Amino acid sequence: MQQAGLSMSVARITLEEFENIVSERLPFARLMGLRLEEITYDYALMRACYSEEFLRPGGTIAGPVMMGLADAAMYAMVLARVGPVELAVTTSLNINFLRKPAPGDMLARATLLKFGKRLVIGEIEMYSASSVDEVVAHATATYSVPPESPVRD
Amino acid sequence: MQQAGLSMSVARITLEEFENIVSERLPFARLMGLRLEEITYDYALMRACYSEEFLRPGGTIAGPVMMGLADAAMYAMVLARVGPVELAVTTSLNINFLRKPAPGDMLARATLLKFGKRLVIGEIEMYSASSVDEVVAHATATYSVPPESPVRD
Amino acid sequence: MQQAGLSMSVARITLEEFENIVSERLPFARLMGLRLEEITYDYALMRACYSEEFLRPGGTIAGPVMMGLADAAMYAMVLARVGPVELAVTTSLNINFLRKPAPGDMLARATLLKFGKRLVIGEIEMYSASSVDEVVAHATATYSVPPESPVRD
Amino acid sequence: MQQAGLSMSVARITLEEFENIVSERLPFARLMGLRLEEITYDYALMRACYSEEFLRPGGTIAGPVMMGLADAAMYAMVLARVGPVELAVTTSLNINFLRKPAPGDMLARATLLKFGKRLVIGEIEMYSASSVDEVVAHATATYSVPPESPVRD
Repeated sequence: MQQAGLSMSVARITLEEFENIVSERLPFARLMGLRLEEITYDYALMRACYSEEFLRPGGTIAGPVMMGLADAAMYAMVLARVGPVELAVTTSLNINFLRKPAPGDMLARATLLKFGKRLVIGEIEMYSASSVDEVVAHATATYSVPPESPVRD
Repeated sequence: MQQAGLSMSVARITLEEFENIVSERLPFARLMGLRLEEITYDYALMRACYSEEFLRPGGTIAGPVMMGLADAAMYAMVLARVGPVELAVTTSLNINFLRKPAPGDMLARATLLKFGKRLVIGEIEMYSASSVDEVVAHATATYSVPPESPVRD
Repeated sequence: MQQAGLSMSVARITLEEFENIVSERLPFARLMGLRLEEITYDYALMRACYSEEFLRPGGTIAGPVMMGLADAAMYAMVLARVGPVELAVTTSLNINFLRKPAPGDMLARATLLKFGKRLVIGEIEMYSASSVDEVVAHATATYSVPPESPVRD
Repeated sequence: MQQAGLSMSVARITLEEFENIVSERLPFARLMGLRLEEITYDYALMRACYSEEFLRPGGTIAGPVMMGLADAAMYAMVLARVGPVELAVTTSLNINFLRKPAPGDMLARATLLKFGKRLVIGEIEMYSASSVDEVVAHATATYSVPPESPVRD
């Protein structure tokens, strides 16, 4: 029984498998310099590697960079639960921009609020890699998972 | 008096001025192939010129492309009202993905729900350029406009 | 075949059937003075009959009144499509408050953005019954419809 | 200096002051059986005392009850920071319904994501009073605070 408990806490996708999906199937994420840093059954940590193309007037990071980062972190979190079901898709995303991050790498940490049969709902906190105590943007997102996916709890 | 009425309906930014902001100050929008097609006092129409980098698994357009497109259309709409106030920033954005667009150019049409002294709230409808009768994504967004901006109605 | 087309435009619930659900099964809506005014295949119009209990500081209508009104208008719109499937439930709702309505009856008009097999997404505009040209609040909402519901398009 | 630190952690409104606002100025909250349980500089805990009027088809709590509860918890949290500024108003609210709570008292815990000069953004978790480990609904909300409010950080 303990084993079952342990096995539950293992992500159903590895860093490598996720990076393969990105490099072969998600050119936009690659374009954005996204890199999955950690993946567990409980959270995903995604990095957007800074480039000058992230800048917007005001010397801060453009909103779409953070939206893409949030969505990708949530995608990884969903796949950590259902396995490499590439066809999982975002159905909605809500984001609040809280502070203006300085130029530099961004991190997003996704966790789940609900893991349902059809819908997976999560929360994503974003911060500057150089200042991980201060959340600069907060999002919630809903993913729809195709019914033919692996059986879930 | 009629003249006053007419002048109200003129956008405070031109296509050219907006394109200058994008090309000089918003490299991410340029990277996404965004191009402002129409700008009036009442709506903005933005195009995302298709490239294979928009694709995601399932043969459809990646969500972040639509989020970036929605945000840029709203930015243009805000500047059409307040003039070239580059420092206007998104404070929140909510998007619903309704259908999976086929590969191709995407269009976003932004209109305003509220034009307040501090907050501007708008609605953005997105569709495939090849099928403009079917909304594929719908967003609402709030922009914050710095107080030093031109006086507004 | 034309008949099939015609029958598509008929709501699958009547004003009377909806009022029965409210009066027997939705005491909170009754408490709020909600009354369905019009129901068609394409839109639902719901009224919140004013009482002094709607007031909040500032002499305007409390936000929760508008949230409850929006949700009920959307519920009616969903049932107009799937029939009296009481178990349809809200999965998410996003609302923007645009203006402060004066005391008085409120109206909400719900229309659909997407009518999917599992999820129904709609848009709700709210205004004062005495000033129907000015939207005072705008919402989008997603409903989940149980799979055992009548077959849909 | 330590004193300044301490004084920062004190709520600028008491349970009693908040209850006075509700009983005199927010009849809708009273109608909903809302009661502020705890108020600190960092969080607010609000209860909706169960009545049969909360029920909806499916034997669960109606969505608008949770929306009103979330909004009231956030209102208390905002006043804990700015003092009894009754004119603080919700500008937007986004809610995800995660699970169907059984009939009974509901609790909402509001915390802040951002405390800005003009906008205050918070997060609200809701759960059944009888099962506080399981979040049944999650909301984020933005309040606008009038500029004449007490000076803030």
